[in-house]
Amino acid sequence: MSGNTTGTLFKVTTWGESHGKAIGVVVDGCPPNIQLSESDIQEELNRRRPGFSQASSPRKEKDMVEILSGIFEEKTTGTPISMIIKNRDAKSGDYKQIKNLFRPGHGDITYFKKYGIRDYRGGGRASGRETAARVAAGAIAGKVIAREGIEIIAYTRELGGIAAEQITLADIDQNSILCPDMEAAEKMENALEGARKTSDSLGGIVEILVKGCPPGLGEPVFDKIDADLAKALMSIGTVKGVEIGAGFEATKMSGSECNDPITPEGFETNNAGGILAGITNGDEIVIRVACKPISSIEKEQQTIDIHGRPTTISIKGRHDVCVIPRIIPVCKAMVSIVLADHLLRQKNIIVF
Amino acid sequence: MSGNTTGTLFKVTTWGESHGKAIGVVVDGCPPNIQLSESDIQEELNRRRPGFSQASSPRKEKDMVEILSGIFEEKTTGTPISMIIKNRDAKSGDYKQIKNLFRPGHGDITYFKKYGIRDYRGGGRASGRETAARVAAGAIAGKVIAREGIEIIAYTRELGGIAAEQITLADIDQNSILCPDMEAAEKMENALEGARKTSDSLGGIVEILVKGCPPGLGEPVFDKIDADLAKALMSIGTVKGVEIGAGFEATKMSGSECNDPITPEGFETNNAGGILAGITNGDEIVIRVACKPISSIEKEQQTIDIHGRPTTISIKGRHDVCVIPRIIPVCKAMVSIVLADHLLRQKNIIVF
Amino acid sequence: MSGNTTGTLFKVTTWGESHGKAIGVVVDGCPPNIQLSESDIQEELNRRRPGFSQASSPRKEKDMVEILSGIFEEKTTGTPISMIIKNRDAKSGDYKQIKNLFRPGHGDITYFKKYGIRDYRGGGRASGRETAARVAAGAIAGKVIAREGIEIIAYTRELGGIAAEQITLADIDQNSILCPDMEAAEKMENALEGARKTSDSLGGIVEILVKGCPPGLGEPVFDKIDADLAKALMSIGTVKGVEIGAGFEATKMSGSECNDPITPEGFETNNAGGILAGITNGDEIVIRVACKPISSIEKEQQTIDIHGRPTTISIKGRHDVCVIPRIIPVCKAMVSIVLADHLLRQKNIIVF
Amino acid sequence: MSGNTTGTLFKVTTWGESHGKAIGVVVDGCPPNIQLSESDIQEELNRRRPGFSQASSPRKEKDMVEILSGIFEEKTTGTPISMIIKNRDAKSGDYKQIKNLFRPGHGDITYFKKYGIRDYRGGGRASGRETAARVAAGAIAGKVIAREGIEIIAYTRELGGIAAEQITLADIDQNSILCPDMEAAEKMENALEGARKTSDSLGGIVEILVKGCPPGLGEPVFDKIDADLAKALMSIGTVKGVEIGAGFEATKMSGSECNDPITPEGFETNNAGGILAGITNGDEIVIRVACKPISSIEKEQQTIDIHGRPTTISIKGRHDVCVIPRIIPVCKAMVSIVLADHLLRQKNIIVF
Repeated sequence: MSGNTTGTLFKVTTWGESHGKAIGVVVDGCPPNIQLSESDIQEELNRRRPGFSQASSPRKEKDMVEILSGIFEEKTTGTPISMIIKNRDAKSGDYKQIKNLFRPGHGDITYFKKYGIRDYRGGGRASGRETAARVAAGAIAGKVIAREGIEIIAYTRELGGIAAEQITLADIDQNSILCPDMEAAEKMENALEGARKTSDSLGGIVEILVKGCPPGLGEPVFDKIDADLAKALMSIGTVKGVEIGAGFEATKMSGSECNDPITPEGFETNNAGGILAGITNGDEIVIRVACKPISSIEKEQQTIDIHGRPTTISIKGRHDVCVIPRIIPVCKAMVSIVLADHLLRQKNIIVF
Repeated sequence: MSGNTTGTLFKVTTWGESHGKAIGVVVDGCPPNIQLSESDIQEELNRRRPGFSQASSPRKEKDMVEILSGIFEEKTTGTPISMIIKNRDAKSGDYKQIKNLFRPGHGDITYFKKYGIRDYRGGGRASGRETAARVAAGAIAGKVIAREGIEIIAYTRELGGIAAEQITLADIDQNSILCPDMEAAEKMENALEGARKTSDSLGGIVEILVKGCPPGLGEPVFDKIDADLAKALMSIGTVKGVEIGAGFEATKMSGSECNDPITPEGFETNNAGGILAGITNGDEIVIRVACKPISSIEKEQQTIDIHGRPTTISIKGRHDVCVIPRIIPVCKAMVSIVLADHLLRQKNIIVF
Repeated sequence: MSGNTTGTLFKVTTWGESHGKAIGVVVDGCPPNIQLSESDIQEELNRRRPGFSQASSPRKEKDMVEILSGIFEEKTTGTPISMIIKNRDAKSGDYKQIKNLFRPGHGDITYFKKYGIRDYRGGGRASGRETAARVAAGAIAGKVIAREGIEIIAYTRELGGIAAEQITLADIDQNSILCPDMEAAEKMENALEGARKTSDSLGGIVEILVKGCPPGLGEPVFDKIDADLAKALMSIGTVKGVEIGAGFEATKMSGSECNDPITPEGFETNNAGGILAGITNGDEIVIRVACKPISSIEKEQQTIDIHGRPTTISIKGRHDVCVIPRIIPVCKAMVSIVLADHLLRQKNIIVF
Repeated sequence: MSGNTTGTLFKVTTWGESHGKAIGVVVDGCPPNIQLSESDIQEELNRRRPGFSQASSPRKEKDMVEILSGIFEEKTTGTPISMIIKNRDAKSGDYKQIKNLFRPGHGDITYFKKYGIRDYRGGGRASGRETAARVAAGAIAGKVIAREGIEIIAYTRELGGIAAEQITLADIDQNSILCPDMEAAEKMENALEGARKTSDSLGGIVEILVKGCPPGLGEPVFDKIDADLAKALMSIGTVKGVEIGAGFEATKMSGSECNDPITPEGFETNNAGGILAGITNGDEIVIRVACKPISSIEKEQQTIDIHGRPTTISIKGRHDVCVIPRIIPVCKAMVSIVLADHLLRQKNIIVF
């Protein structure tokens, strides 16, 4: 139990179920005197709003964040920042049809086995909605790291097996998929349309770049920065894999190919993905996360009910076809939270 | 700082540098009354001993473990178990030649940037030798989870780009690569031989199976079991990627392909890799970790010295050609430690 | 930073300032399937309500708690329980007069030195109001420990130097001071009246008894149960001392007087206060906490303003004359939280 | 379980039983580049050596510390510092006579109830010997805080009911009791002699002063500096009470007496003991800890054996008559550890 708090110095605690009264988050450990208002948070939240792209479900909750503490005259005070997002548009009724059925690929069966409780309303804590609280916390973390010149960029690297071939960062905001390759983006949109027509869903790969990160972040041997990034990203429900730099490709290289030559100007290549021995090396951090296809689909699937009897299920609710691109701000938030925490942890050494 | 302790209830703290007096580990939180002797630990340590296979370096330290506390009459007492492994065969002299050079792909440059200290003797904490302490702790964790019927199997899934095509678990111990495919194992051995001849190194993929794991382990939303496994495995120096179940392949599937149909007898497929929403589902846990090629190679590489001047480096010490298969017991150890911790965390709910 | 979360398995995170929008708490790690409703929490909150006794300030906030998550059909689900108490009756205006003055005995000067922020509205996080969140969390902890037969009784042992001479537990609820000695209670009431008339304040001692606690709780050597109790109680703003069992009196005894003889029926005396070597021994736990007089008084005091200039201050707001008896439910809450946490930590051993 | 690690950034893990092979400690999070050698540690250890004064047992173990990691060229490297103290003079034989008896006032009965294990050799983890590891860690913490100008002074305030009437710090090292009042020291020595003759033991009060502590240390609302100090000190086996500043005396004062007037030059009095709202205020920190009389006495006492049968016990081993003055360096160590941790935690804010 009690796995809902993360971080050592920049501490984030989320709470709330998809169909309860509200969801929220407490951020403890944010340094004082940082300019912060609700609109800073809202801006990030809007990026994961459903209806943002054609990959999204038509559920139109507004996700209005309210800051309840930790701010005085639009500045952080060093005390915990509590944020709440009320659940406005939750129709539990939609879920009645599947009240007694386990959804394949979904956490309702494991939650039931773990806690011995059947909360059939939506996904409860396992719902993607929980990630809104992460985005809110990530917005604050983003402010902390921005002060040190750190910037995070994330985009769709692959969707439904279609890969972005060339990365033009300026193109990311030019298409609804947040893909840096306009041509690939169009193919991805078609793939999404195809999946929607067959009542199915798709997965994909998000790539995250961290620019301007100082060297020295990461706490060997267990709290290495790549270890904490992997944990943070893998804790997102949809993620089934995380790789840093060359990642799985590195396994096919020889040492002389994989090692990044060092020059007075910096590293010549970046197979390390900006991290050596679990510590940032000052180069760009490169991370890719594998997102499985959304499990809730209308297509009929084989399952059992809560009494163990075989049956089929067709999930009729409002569901996205793909977590991408809505998951992108969530990935950015988790990376921001990890970096803010490690930045504060490293500060001790820098100033001592 | 202070990233050398991991776990919430089964707590592991490692210490020691590759060329200091000793390395060691303190395991705190092991339940009392478990039969445990030094030979239980030694057996696991022997599996990561150098010289075990042709992939290994000829450095012949014996890695004899000594238990210093926490055991009475060959049983755990519930108090911390301290273990020490003395460094016998450390020739710092070997490293004098590279005293002022940063090794490409190695952590010496980031350690220097982080701590402002240049400890040129071997890899210090960044050395693979540190993982012996993890194996010792993992041996105890292994005892804890074995009592619940959990068994961990790990093997070489890929080496130097050569994949095991068919998995015959009985074959794992029949070759020096710990590969479940004898034919692939032979090719891998040849690849290793080739790399050695060119003073280069190779990487590969380790696959880990957890059998007999009860459902319900994992603590959403941040301490999910896959999140903690990813962190634990990514914290091994050589690892650049971790995936669960179908992993990165899942990104190319549709939801109807990826979702594992549920039947009264269990799941029909296992794309989830035994984990749904961060909680074990009772099915086999499947994990793959990407190991980069060893960074220390004799082949000449471009680098800088500690004053920032360009130069070349050729690392002459005794180095393995590939971390596989020596890394396999380390991977098993880290998985054991995570499972032991989560088993204890879940116990609270079970008995309440 | 980030000191607003406590507990290892039963984890409590509080947030909120006395004059912000609301205060609240997230309880993570409460076992599932415990009957819980808002009225359970409200009942405890009412006990610390101002206006409860003549020791209290006339500020009449209602402290209505709302549960936002973690409950389904009036039972805990195992997910985080978020509770909020809105601030209704906060008149920041009252504080304008002392906006630039540091209050002697108050935390406004240390908060300013720590965070570099001057939040002049009431006490911010240092306000006694923060303890309402603790009481709400304690009410849940109380449910957890009650299931194991643990009961907590707390009362006024001393007030303004007047001690309860004989302890009649049945009398506690028969007077507004929550004193187990009716005669002493009357004297205490008179003392409070006297202090009010002179615009001054009083302190006192709260005694806490824990009945029915099983042996075995406490985690040596740092997380001993008395150590965690001392921390939890000392973390209440008003507390300047904590003692267990004979406490400071034990220092004047000889070993043969202080040691509690052991008989087949149990301990003959209880100088240990139910705790030996940091582990509960099955006997009644006895704790006393020293509460200093309330620092905010109308009586004129010498101080400085935020620019360091000497001046005098007379605090006109609505303030209690003594934290007792309002602090009593807070003490009970903190003890409940520690016991719930340690009960869950010990469960692992019991069942293994 | 797993309560043997303390600290957030300056993390201390102790291990070892009084009659096992060794005891030891791992200090993780010590900043790099601090001058440190074994003699620095040894010096502190010598202060708690038995045989130091007439209050001590004649057991003459040497307590030679060995540093095993974390130091390079006599400087800390930022990696974990592992220290070991071998047990040389442990005669388990001494304990055979009481193998099956529970000692009144001792933790052997609670350890047995908690873990279900009977380790009859000496006190195991409950032995005072465990505190040597704390002293070793405290010596390192002392180096960390000394760099910021913090100095800790501790002495015998009371022994066997005899109080130091006037505090002359220069006198502390002039007597074997470490008492700042030479006249009282003589009386204390007589009291110790008396207790020894009657095969009994005594308790006392240690007072600790922290000079030069900067304002701003402490992390409300749970990790307040006084809360963490109380926990750290109460975690010492002998301690039954902790008070800050005026402590229990404050409960008898009025607010106008207890509040420390603030002047441009600082606080006029120090009833707060240097801590306001859980944060240091820049004034001297004042702490008193109540030490109970040593439980192991030769005088016959009533007890039961491990089968629950009534009997008597007379403990013949080598035991101190009073934990004072040997406990004094332990108290200093625990205060140093807490201050080092909070200093590092506060650094983040200072530099941001």
